[in-house]
Amino acid sequence: MSSDTGEFVGAYGSGGLACSAEAARAADEHDELASARQLFALPDTMIYLDGNSLGALPVQVGPAVTDLVDRQWGQQLITSWNVNDWWRLPARVGDRIGRLIGAAAGQVMCGDSTSVQLFQALVAACRMRPGRGTILTDADGFPTDQYLADAVAELLELKVVRLHPGELAAHLSDDVAVVSLSQVDYRTGELFDAAAITEAVHAAGALMVWDLCHSAGALPVELDAIQADFAVGCSYKYLNGGPGAPGYIYIAARHLDAAVLPLTGWHGHRSPFQLSQRYSPAPSIERARIGTPPVLSMAALDAALTVFDQVSLAAIRRKSLALTDLVIEFARTRLAGFGVEVATPLPHDRRGSQVSLRMPAAYEVCQELIARGVIGDFREPDLLRLGFTPLYLSYADVYEAMDRLAEVLADGSYADGRYANRTVVT
Amino acid sequence: MSSDTGEFVGAYGSGGLACSAEAARAADEHDELASARQLFALPDTMIYLDGNSLGALPVQVGPAVTDLVDRQWGQQLITSWNVNDWWRLPARVGDRIGRLIGAAAGQVMCGDSTSVQLFQALVAACRMRPGRGTILTDADGFPTDQYLADAVAELLELKVVRLHPGELAAHLSDDVAVVSLSQVDYRTGELFDAAAITEAVHAAGALMVWDLCHSAGALPVELDAIQADFAVGCSYKYLNGGPGAPGYIYIAARHLDAAVLPLTGWHGHRSPFQLSQRYSPAPSIERARIGTPPVLSMAALDAALTVFDQVSLAAIRRKSLALTDLVIEFARTRLAGFGVEVATPLPHDRRGSQVSLRMPAAYEVCQELIARGVIGDFREPDLLRLGFTPLYLSYADVYEAMDRLAEVLADGSYADGRYANRTVVT
Repeated sequence: MSSDTGEFVGAYGSGGLACSAEAARAADEHDELASARQLFALPDTMIYLDGNSLGALPVQVGPAVTDLVDRQWGQQLITSWNVNDWWRLPARVGDRIGRLIGAAAGQVMCGDSTSVQLFQALVAACRMRPGRGTILTDADGFPTDQYLADAVAELLELKVVRLHPGELAAHLSDDVAVVSLSQVDYRTGELFDAAAITEAVHAAGALMVWDLCHSAGALPVELDAIQADFAVGCSYKYLNGGPGAPGYIYIAARHLDAAVLPLTGWHGHRSPFQLSQRYSPAPSIERARIGTPPVLSMAALDAALTVFDQVSLAAIRRKSLALTDLVIEFARTRLAGFGVEVATPLPHDRRGSQVSLRMPAAYEVCQELIARGVIGDFREPDLLRLGFTPLYLSYADVYEAMDRLAEVLADGSYADGRYANRTVVT
Repeated sequence: MSSDTGEFVGAYGSGGLACSAEAARAADEHDELASARQLFALPDTMIYLDGNSLGALPVQVGPAVTDLVDRQWGQQLITSWNVNDWWRLPARVGDRIGRLIGAAAGQVMCGDSTSVQLFQALVAACRMRPGRGTILTDADGFPTDQYLADAVAELLELKVVRLHPGELAAHLSDDVAVVSLSQVDYRTGELFDAAAITEAVHAAGALMVWDLCHSAGALPVELDAIQADFAVGCSYKYLNGGPGAPGYIYIAARHLDAAVLPLTGWHGHRSPFQLSQRYSPAPSIERARIGTPPVLSMAALDAALTVFDQVSLAAIRRKSLALTDLVIEFARTRLAGFGVEVATPLPHDRRGSQVSLRMPAAYEVCQELIARGVIGDFREPDLLRLGFTPLYLSYADVYEAMDRLAEVLADGSYADGRYANRTVVT
């Protein structure tokens, strides 16, 4: 199904079937993930193509949160740290996430935000390469990833070099301590070859920090298999953990002893309840704990992740590619006349679970599309970004969304000034 | 009511009335905070003296969290960042907390854990005193406070000197960059004179970082009035925000331009949605944002804080002192024979909202007390720590708790080996 040449070979429609409402309905009849939709509470009036910003609500979350608040907190209070095992919640949820990113147990800790976890990973990784003076990061990477690289470089007196991941080979040298990249470009949806990049980084004697925000839960990630060093991510996108759900950090088992994390909160201490004066990190992934974790948000995430007990990432990936094939085929055949270009790479092995469409007036088109019940988002300067979560989207939904986009573009009313006053949040 | 001499002058009982169940019931009849109990959902079978670890559940939290999950997340999804104003939630909650710690609007940001916020404050403060090489911190301070001081010192190539706050004058010099102290000692409940200490620190040209974990919500704190520089705290103790509720940071308005915070997540950017490559901090307390905040946990905290719209901190403080007077009087008159000593200072102006009792077998006594429905906690090596939240504790509750403690001590069964297998969590 995939192509290395850059030529588009659509899985959906098998290169022959028409891109039509009928074909979409037919695909739904054979959808192995069709029943997963009932695991989510989504309004019927909305086609939600923004699961790459905030995943939809899994139905198990509500009861879990109510139990957490009313019974565990309200009735059992402080004793819940023991009787409901709040103490081990971050490691338990970490292992749950680990199963989705190819990490054996004991290497993932849940907590804090992606920003904080990235700071932890970058400092620890740079400290493991003393004498090397450079951090490489993606010039088109998510802003936080760039800002944190700069912040860490300032504290550790290193320098940051920005590049495109495709130019990595030319920048690797024995001065590079750490390479920090997102596996999927948040704007274009380009998927990078994590195995090949990690191998090249190791060959240069450097360490690799992966940001999995746009890949975890959307496609199989194999951190252990590719010999990843560190990884971080959020859990509110394809993991459906809820707004601001806690992030996580992966530290490969072989680095656990050497990883000196900068945020030495008492939860990461070897014997936290001895309350001793000097920090001594736990000899396990427990050292990646910082302060008291946000139990409410983490319990919601814990419940949300049960969705993945019932589906396989391979099936998610198959349907994700079929859905994005449909979108790309639609855009190329029916939207090109409106100046729409597909910014997402065409080959399957270079595509995440989103399609970004470059177009004039992308902001206004996005707003009008939202007004017509299709939720995508806008990214500066000219991208309409559409994310696809195969767990709760049908082929018919996606076809319908594209059809409405075609209507919006044909209609042209988005340009009448109604969206002149821009407000953009997330 | 207070005394500077160290002699105990109890407010409760006015030095004459008996410390009795009758006196406690009489005090309840005149309790100006009696009606606040109905703002909390507490089990009737429990006397909860651990609000200094995890505050009880305010009844407004459940409905607020359900609305957040079911309607805002479930139905409105990503649009909630705008339509439910999630974007400004951290600043809104920050200002709510600000009103409880004497901070005018625009100086407090809610988010992350106390550990992370302390890291932010310490780095920013040290950077504002270049050329000075020392951080002073409390040798008996909470472990995280000591660990983070060490971590920051390592990153910035400073040294940490540990002391008792009473010895501060002898350690202040022109080499001291920052003094970091908790306003209330977490073990003994000793309250330090924040105004005098801040003044002395400033006189030495250093900056002051206050940890308010054990004071915010328990007594009036006046950060602006005492010219505090930075402060941090948690919200799950006397602020009743729920397990792991987010922390906060206070940055005095006069420092907002100069405070260079190390954790440069995109939410703190001057124009976050421009998604630019270089970090430029917001020219306001918004710069103290880091990554996407835990919206669920923060919404719970927001609802919990409405309790304080209906009560005054002055009234809370009055009752807190009366309750701790009762406990101290009881301990001195009826528990001394069991080897119990009051570790908390006797003068009102040196006492937080807890009483710590030093005794043999404190761990076992604490466990047996819990088994009999009175929840306190144990702190190494020999302290039974009892916290008092006047919002949901009556005088009769507290008298009853002490009576049960006397029973436990007299009975002696705690020493029969039933608690030989220690498990201590928070």
